[in-house]
Amino acid sequence: MSTSSLISQDTIIALATSPGANGAIAVIRLSGSEAISLVNQVFKGKDLSKQASHTVHFGTIRDGEQIIDEVLITLFVGPNSYTKENVVEISTHNSKYIIERIIGLLIKKGARAAKAGEFTLRAFLNGGMDLSQAEAVADLIASNSAASHQIAMQQMRGGFSNQLQKLREDLVHFASLIELELDFAEEDVEFANREQLRSLIQEIHQVISKLIRSFEQGNVLKNGVPVVIAGKPNVGKSTLLNALLNEERAIVSDIAGTTRDTIEDEINIHGVTFRFIDTAGIRDTEDVIEAKGVERTREKMKQARLIIYLFDPTQDYIAAVQSQIEEVRSLNIPFVTIINKSDLLSEGERMEYAVLNPIYISAKQGLGIEELKDELLNQVNLSNINTEDVMVTNIRHVEALQHTQEALEKVLYGIDNPITSDFLAMDIRQALQYLGEITGTVTTDDLLENIFSKFCIGK
Amino acid sequence: MSTSSLISQDTIIALATSPGANGAIAVIRLSGSEAISLVNQVFKGKDLSKQASHTVHFGTIRDGEQIIDEVLITLFVGPNSYTKENVVEISTHNSKYIIERIIGLLIKKGARAAKAGEFTLRAFLNGGMDLSQAEAVADLIASNSAASHQIAMQQMRGGFSNQLQKLREDLVHFASLIELELDFAEEDVEFANREQLRSLIQEIHQVISKLIRSFEQGNVLKNGVPVVIAGKPNVGKSTLLNALLNEERAIVSDIAGTTRDTIEDEINIHGVTFRFIDTAGIRDTEDVIEAKGVERTREKMKQARLIIYLFDPTQDYIAAVQSQIEEVRSLNIPFVTIINKSDLLSEGERMEYAVLNPIYISAKQGLGIEELKDELLNQVNLSNINTEDVMVTNIRHVEALQHTQEALEKVLYGIDNPITSDFLAMDIRQALQYLGEITGTVTTDDLLENIFSKFCIGK
Repeated sequence: MSTSSLISQDTIIALATSPGANGAIAVIRLSGSEAISLVNQVFKGKDLSKQASHTVHFGTIRDGEQIIDEVLITLFVGPNSYTKENVVEISTHNSKYIIERIIGLLIKKGARAAKAGEFTLRAFLNGGMDLSQAEAVADLIASNSAASHQIAMQQMRGGFSNQLQKLREDLVHFASLIELELDFAEEDVEFANREQLRSLIQEIHQVISKLIRSFEQGNVLKNGVPVVIAGKPNVGKSTLLNALLNEERAIVSDIAGTTRDTIEDEINIHGVTFRFIDTAGIRDTEDVIEAKGVERTREKMKQARLIIYLFDPTQDYIAAVQSQIEEVRSLNIPFVTIINKSDLLSEGERMEYAVLNPIYISAKQGLGIEELKDELLNQVNLSNINTEDVMVTNIRHVEALQHTQEALEKVLYGIDNPITSDFLAMDIRQALQYLGEITGTVTTDDLLENIFSKFCIGK
Repeated sequence: MSTSSLISQDTIIALATSPGANGAIAVIRLSGSEAISLVNQVFKGKDLSKQASHTVHFGTIRDGEQIIDEVLITLFVGPNSYTKENVVEISTHNSKYIIERIIGLLIKKGARAAKAGEFTLRAFLNGGMDLSQAEAVADLIASNSAASHQIAMQQMRGGFSNQLQKLREDLVHFASLIELELDFAEEDVEFANREQLRSLIQEIHQVISKLIRSFEQGNVLKNGVPVVIAGKPNVGKSTLLNALLNEERAIVSDIAGTTRDTIEDEINIHGVTFRFIDTAGIRDTEDVIEAKGVERTREKMKQARLIIYLFDPTQDYIAAVQSQIEEVRSLNIPFVTIINKSDLLSEGERMEYAVLNPIYISAKQGLGIEELKDELLNQVNLSNINTEDVMVTNIRHVEALQHTQEALEKVLYGIDNPITSDFLAMDIRQALQYLGEITGTVTTDDLLENIFSKFCIGK
């Protein structure tokens, strides 16, 4: 399918599961034409070369007479495998020593240690998936929320590629019509109806614009919503953060058998991740949004997509609060006003603060936290996002789409101005090129190496 | 096979591979009569209930209409599985989110989160392995050297149990003969020839003594040889340790695809682990083995199985060195005398030091390190250990063997003194009881819970 110099006939090997001492089993994976025959040389059990694809076999891996482990061997005979090549998975006891011995033994027999992402690279090069699908595999592994997971899953299953493929076919059709005109250049014919071309290009331009716009939301869903909790010192910012975080951790630890790396300052609300920007600098400043701290604070806050402005009514009068809120408002970033320690307010005081349209909470008592969460979701306006929609989350894809747009705009300019068909064709080809880079129809080795080197080894 | 209250009909589930972000795939394991039907409820692909054992099937795991992941399902139909029950392994993309979702989903459908070691407990309860084999599984996973690996592998494959089983049968034979005598107590017959019984008991006693003695070496092979590097400050102790450690690390990092947790102060020489005891206290003492530091130093050194005594000939005269060596010798622990910075010695000086029978090294230049390693191996006298021999490495087993010995000694006393057959039978039964505790022929729920709770979840 591809003529990339990255195509290799070697049989590659790597640990496919996470290293670490807490597992019961580990899986070593090989791919390549010799995968089955290499493993057969060190396996004592059934003759693997005579077994059907998608079957599992118990036996021992031996180095000479010495038994290294009792294992289960799973066979995938190409092209019915992830990489489309012969694939063998060796399920071993999870001992670092055993894993090193088995990998070392098979390398001695002729396998080569796989490079990062090399299994998925082979899946791509052998036509098992297109490039955006391959990239989605990495996103899927990294996904840590319902939203990011859903986007990656949708992309891996081809939703994204399908939509691009449709656009590309439309463009290819017109490119060939225009190129046909070049063959008859002497005769000054127009096979491609310029009006139809214009409206098609405009339609495509619109769809791509929508994809580019989806990036902002897609990126937020993938990487989390950056949030700043602002407010004067000692109004309860850390207590609020802990109230949000603790609840999250309690939920996660409900499911036994999975351990969770400590994630600092990141919470997940109904499938959306909120990522808290370190505002240590802000916290140190005596007065958050006034006087000399303003510039630094503003810069930090501008990175946010949402500001939680917290104040303590037992510390501040409403007039002071209102002027601070004005400052926050001037940043033009969505913000939520929160009154902490609201359990200490009288009914009269509550009425007085109502003009700020705040959310009343008590971080310490855990009051109002659910209401706050609903408001956070509401503010980032994700409720109307349908994760079934095609969504762009990859900066590389956005760039290619933007380049496509520029080429399309040149085409539009060409239609409306007296330029020759060959330039028009060139601009269309340019747009096709950029679109092809997303799905991998058009690639360079540099591009592939750059993409797959970010994968983990074993994938 | 057992009437333990730990037998349970639940279908259990756990992550079987290591948690962590660095893997490509993860494996979730279920065991129990409902394992296949539960997974079938959430799997879209072939009907799993109609597939053969030891086959692999591609498809998706879905929560309602939502796809959680594309997976490979491996089926093991009981009793042809690790636990002897129906077992399903789900190979997923290695995303914490996906793993939690799938385990959560299957728990909702009726599975139960597995307890630590519960899969192996079931393998034991269902007769898949005896207790010492089950314990060897945990040892195998923890093994980090050729020696510890080989011992665990041999034990898992039943070598240890086989030898005990033989001993037990011999004892059972005599126990039944003696008990037969009890039935005929009025008639004063002796079915069991006392001379034969005596020589059999002596033979068994000898074999068990050998097993108990093997513990010291077995334990060293399993847990490493405790070593102290002694010597005055600045003679090059840390440099020597680094010279040994660095070489080791370089070897390990040769095999790509495996990461290695940092192990401080532990080296592996030809398959044997040497574990360096923290002698920070010793290093701080001005004069290592003289004057007031002696007591503390002695205590530290007594934990060692080997002392490396290092000195710097450019700092110390031979007379001072000799008196220090006398002190070390008085501890009665094997020791190696090493002259560091030997590259700075003249031929004459070397001859002078020869009376100490030292090893000449330069830790900084990396000279003499190989010779030192050979000497370390030589000193711990492991060269003549055949890891194919049955070897006891488990403190629980040693204790049971020691109790067996005591019971056997009572039997011998009983033969030589006028005690009645019923007491003799009781002592033999006692010995049988202790032996049975090792292989699990005789168990209590407390014992099982204690053993399996030390396993990781998923095993």
